[in-house]
Amino acid sequence: MRVAIVGASGFLGGELLRLLLGHPHATVVAAVSRRLPGRRVDGPHPHLRGQTGLRFCLPDDVPDCDVAVLATPHGATAGLIETWRKRAEVVIDLSADLRLRSAEAYHHYYGAEHPHPELLGTAVAGWPERHRAELAGANLISVPGCGANAAILALYPLAAEGLVEPTATVDARVGSSGSGHSAGFAGQHAVRSGAMRVFAPQGHRHEAEVAQATGLSVAMSATAVEAVRGVQVLCRARLHDAVDEVALHRLYRRHYGAEPFVRLVAHRRGVHRLPEPKMLSGTNFCDVGFSLATDGRGVVVVAALDNLVKGGSGNAVQCLNIRAGWPERTGLEFGGLYPL
Amino acid sequence: MRVAIVGASGFLGGELLRLLLGHPHATVVAAVSRRLPGRRVDGPHPHLRGQTGLRFCLPDDVPDCDVAVLATPHGATAGLIETWRKRAEVVIDLSADLRLRSAEAYHHYYGAEHPHPELLGTAVAGWPERHRAELAGANLISVPGCGANAAILALYPLAAEGLVEPTATVDARVGSSGSGHSAGFAGQHAVRSGAMRVFAPQGHRHEAEVAQATGLSVAMSATAVEAVRGVQVLCRARLHDAVDEVALHRLYRRHYGAEPFVRLVAHRRGVHRLPEPKMLSGTNFCDVGFSLATDGRGVVVVAALDNLVKGGSGNAVQCLNIRAGWPERTGLEFGGLYPL
Amino acid sequence: MRVAIVGASGFLGGELLRLLLGHPHATVVAAVSRRLPGRRVDGPHPHLRGQTGLRFCLPDDVPDCDVAVLATPHGATAGLIETWRKRAEVVIDLSADLRLRSAEAYHHYYGAEHPHPELLGTAVAGWPERHRAELAGANLISVPGCGANAAILALYPLAAEGLVEPTATVDARVGSSGSGHSAGFAGQHAVRSGAMRVFAPQGHRHEAEVAQATGLSVAMSATAVEAVRGVQVLCRARLHDAVDEVALHRLYRRHYGAEPFVRLVAHRRGVHRLPEPKMLSGTNFCDVGFSLATDGRGVVVVAALDNLVKGGSGNAVQCLNIRAGWPERTGLEFGGLYPL
Amino acid sequence: MRVAIVGASGFLGGELLRLLLGHPHATVVAAVSRRLPGRRVDGPHPHLRGQTGLRFCLPDDVPDCDVAVLATPHGATAGLIETWRKRAEVVIDLSADLRLRSAEAYHHYYGAEHPHPELLGTAVAGWPERHRAELAGANLISVPGCGANAAILALYPLAAEGLVEPTATVDARVGSSGSGHSAGFAGQHAVRSGAMRVFAPQGHRHEAEVAQATGLSVAMSATAVEAVRGVQVLCRARLHDAVDEVALHRLYRRHYGAEPFVRLVAHRRGVHRLPEPKMLSGTNFCDVGFSLATDGRGVVVVAALDNLVKGGSGNAVQCLNIRAGWPERTGLEFGGLYPL
Repeated sequence: MRVAIVGASGFLGGELLRLLLGHPHATVVAAVSRRLPGRRVDGPHPHLRGQTGLRFCLPDDVPDCDVAVLATPHGATAGLIETWRKRAEVVIDLSADLRLRSAEAYHHYYGAEHPHPELLGTAVAGWPERHRAELAGANLISVPGCGANAAILALYPLAAEGLVEPTATVDARVGSSGSGHSAGFAGQHAVRSGAMRVFAPQGHRHEAEVAQATGLSVAMSATAVEAVRGVQVLCRARLHDAVDEVALHRLYRRHYGAEPFVRLVAHRRGVHRLPEPKMLSGTNFCDVGFSLATDGRGVVVVAALDNLVKGGSGNAVQCLNIRAGWPERTGLEFGGLYPL
Repeated sequence: MRVAIVGASGFLGGELLRLLLGHPHATVVAAVSRRLPGRRVDGPHPHLRGQTGLRFCLPDDVPDCDVAVLATPHGATAGLIETWRKRAEVVIDLSADLRLRSAEAYHHYYGAEHPHPELLGTAVAGWPERHRAELAGANLISVPGCGANAAILALYPLAAEGLVEPTATVDARVGSSGSGHSAGFAGQHAVRSGAMRVFAPQGHRHEAEVAQATGLSVAMSATAVEAVRGVQVLCRARLHDAVDEVALHRLYRRHYGAEPFVRLVAHRRGVHRLPEPKMLSGTNFCDVGFSLATDGRGVVVVAALDNLVKGGSGNAVQCLNIRAGWPERTGLEFGGLYPL
Repeated sequence: MRVAIVGASGFLGGELLRLLLGHPHATVVAAVSRRLPGRRVDGPHPHLRGQTGLRFCLPDDVPDCDVAVLATPHGATAGLIETWRKRAEVVIDLSADLRLRSAEAYHHYYGAEHPHPELLGTAVAGWPERHRAELAGANLISVPGCGANAAILALYPLAAEGLVEPTATVDARVGSSGSGHSAGFAGQHAVRSGAMRVFAPQGHRHEAEVAQATGLSVAMSATAVEAVRGVQVLCRARLHDAVDEVALHRLYRRHYGAEPFVRLVAHRRGVHRLPEPKMLSGTNFCDVGFSLATDGRGVVVVAALDNLVKGGSGNAVQCLNIRAGWPERTGLEFGGLYPL
Repeated sequence: MRVAIVGASGFLGGELLRLLLGHPHATVVAAVSRRLPGRRVDGPHPHLRGQTGLRFCLPDDVPDCDVAVLATPHGATAGLIETWRKRAEVVIDLSADLRLRSAEAYHHYYGAEHPHPELLGTAVAGWPERHRAELAGANLISVPGCGANAAILALYPLAAEGLVEPTATVDARVGSSGSGHSAGFAGQHAVRSGAMRVFAPQGHRHEAEVAQATGLSVAMSATAVEAVRGVQVLCRARLHDAVDEVALHRLYRRHYGAEPFVRLVAHRRGVHRLPEPKMLSGTNFCDVGFSLATDGRGVVVVAALDNLVKGGSGNAVQCLNIRAGWPERTGLEFGGLYPL
């Protein structure tokens, strides 16, 4: 399958290149960058050195392709969808533009009218654990936000089975790579280093996605912490009725036991009892774990993933694997490093 | 005033030495360490190089003193209290042993009977913002835990005025220095570096202190993040009635406007809009800020401090200043570094 | 091929497990740990979660095997060699015990008599770029130290062609994972974090290896810097005769142009002009670059690698690939992450 | 004394404000910033919160003053000197513009003609350990670069006494705050984090300063490592004649024993045997230590300092103290934090 990566010079673009250049059934036919046409992709993406001689090109120079993966900026991507749908059978969008179904929610969270409201609700959510069947036939796929994906995978099993009260909180801790290439003064190393910066105490944009996916009313905060890659969410929910830990284990295992990329990490002992993102760097795993209060009703669910992989590019490749009928793990076998 | 520091070789001991060696009215007459008697204090505390020739001594070698500050381990300190009370008019305890008033709560959170239950409730809480008057005459002072102190200073104004519903959540993010000198494998750099480790998803020990101080029912989690110094708490509470931001600003200013070490940090713009611990390293400040949900009832309160200073040794010195009748800022003037 | 990993619970053991569990032609038949027999390997090695159910065993429980890879401590490994040579056709040693050929050099650098001097000089150096032919038939292989390997790959081309004066300096910067599981107080996060600790200003042990391999007289220092993985060496040498950069490029390309795991990184522009270890985490690459002084004679050569991979376990797997006649890249395809 | 700080919105400006607002004999009458006139100084410098209500002003709004400290950009500062000399009796320049005495050296290292060659050689070097007497009467003072200052303090005692061969090497490791407010993509946290980036393998600009001050021919490299503050230099020199360690200790003690801000750190045991910058954050110390090769002739000298303090603003205040006849430690008493 011939794949064009659009917006290939950013961090998500670099991950798409890493994953798809190593993918046995996909061929990267173009890496589109308006900023760096003609330049080698291993310039801004030095981890590709020695692995490819590919160069960036302009949109007009993209040859025939089957799939276009858009890693272009929020707001600007909606306007590109129709163009790329004409050029590729399958379009996978990593931006936020197609994630929400409601124009009102979009306006509330993004502070502007949606530029193409007619597109809302037309994409299948890039959420393989729930929409595997639809993804197999989808020609327009919208990949969730990194923090949203973690929170959704954390809370969905509880919400889907109607076990929890209708409000939940999500506190996300995020690394700096989520801010992309141009984070400005706030992203300068001297300023961002060692941060515990609550940049969104309330109303983080991913809140809307989590609410849409789980049906819960969600209050979400986000804090920038010292990390380059990684998102961790600590979610609090309250069960209608008290359960024991065994029941909770069983519930999560029922949902995720057969999933290739969701692992249950909820141990009683050891240093790494609950999910941590660092050891997930480069992997497509989302680890999910939980802790039950002594009253059997308060639940803390923790989930972690690599924001650039399961929180973006890897999830897109997983969706592509499903769409193309390839084994879901193809090209996503890397299992992570420890210590790191 | 002649001060003996007991448990002087640990991180809290090093901070006590730094602060008290530079204090114009206090004289450090002894730095007690059973582990390193006879060794220079600037060995384990290299930031004291060139500033003192003091050596550690054994407890029996402590000369006459007016104040004993105990930075000895939890559990072992209760048994030392009576001895030191005989030797010093004022005893300030930085351990957890005297913090709770209830033997039941102690047993629940520490998993053992309190070794000296007759001591519970006999110390004045080292919480200057609330107990200034009692501290002025106190001969036994118990300094709160670092995370507890941050959460208490965050939530108390809301709780004291009866504005909030009776349950609140506290999510603490902590640096590695809180684990002290002997953190073991979990504290090894290769393992701890870049961590987002939810080591206490529920029922962190400081929970009991926050509940005792605020009267709220508190669910507290703690996560180890990449930092050496620093604690940040993100607290969620819900107001009985909707308010606006101006009212909330006024409330916090009423409580803390005259406080020497609590600053209100709740800005609309800029990189550092809410409290962050890094720039507080070495200072006795606790910064407090908040964010109000659009419904006017959901409040996120954020507080940050240096766990070894306002979360321990600095707070102890502030209490000593009050007890001795010195200006409260004495010896605590350092204002912090930025960037760091 | 059936491989036993001895000393499998440490960081190098974890890397060996990661690489060999994913190797298409090798089967890990045993993970030996005297400390953790019966425990799952994904306990101390959480990056293996979901990828294996393997458990540690004692040496006596190792089944028939073709290869034994020893990741056991320096000093203790020499005494294990003969035992494992009886049990496996091929023994690959990652410790320092067989690296030096001279008992005198060993005594000088390790401060003790070599425990089995009869073994010195009997192993083929695990230096594929130079000893590929011998490795193809070797039954006892000694893998170089991480810093030594970087410095040797940096300096050898200059030394081999007789271009440089006989003395060179090597300044190594190293991450914390090189200190292993039990780094003690010096390795505690609070103490090690943000370090620039010149722990070996002169006479680092790897000095002897570099001298032995290059024939140069080498002065080597080592500094612990803030990193978990990674070694970087900055080497200074002086050419007998002035050259230009093109000639130097040609020289290095002649030596390494066909090498699967040595990349030449010496660019004129861009952020990452010279080798940096972070983007090599998890890979078997050693990147080598250089800079020539304006006089054409002073050379700074910079090399970087992941101390646990090309500086240890990955290099061992590369040697195994050569010994077994498999393509050299087998199982070592991971190309690294950026940003990280 | 009335002091105006020009270029007050950058990191060096923030340090000048911190030090001079806390200085008992200096009054900051103006904080000049063309970028932020009218804005509070505690916006870009949040460590000053609660400590001052000062606002930035334009150059024309500076009231009468005795001292102007220039923390303005390299290249642009030379053109400001005459203006400020007319407005203030004493001008202290932190830029590189007045550091070199030779127009040729300037051209070689800065790649351009010096904009005001008539100024070269007219300033007294802000090097108190050597030029204390001249500084007492100086009206134009040029503060050395951070890495240069460390290397000069490391090498000068050896060079001054004619003990070393004429060539030396200096390898500097530097934190990110030295790049200032606008480090661009290379300074983004995701890219800069965990770096070991040899950005100057040869010919770093500070090389010229070190050579000028010591009379040695110096080859200097610089590597960006993971740190915000801090410079460490590892210098290699070769003695004409073998000495023992005691002699070397004596030599350094003779030079620095009475210095308020240079400490000799060269211990045989302990974790922190040689100078490390982290514990010097915020202090005006330069720690200097050394190690002697077994031949008694090879010397490694290590020095560390905080690039924004002893490497800039603190050194400027020390010079001001000398010029004004105040005790040299005034306003510079902060001794540092550990752990940090």
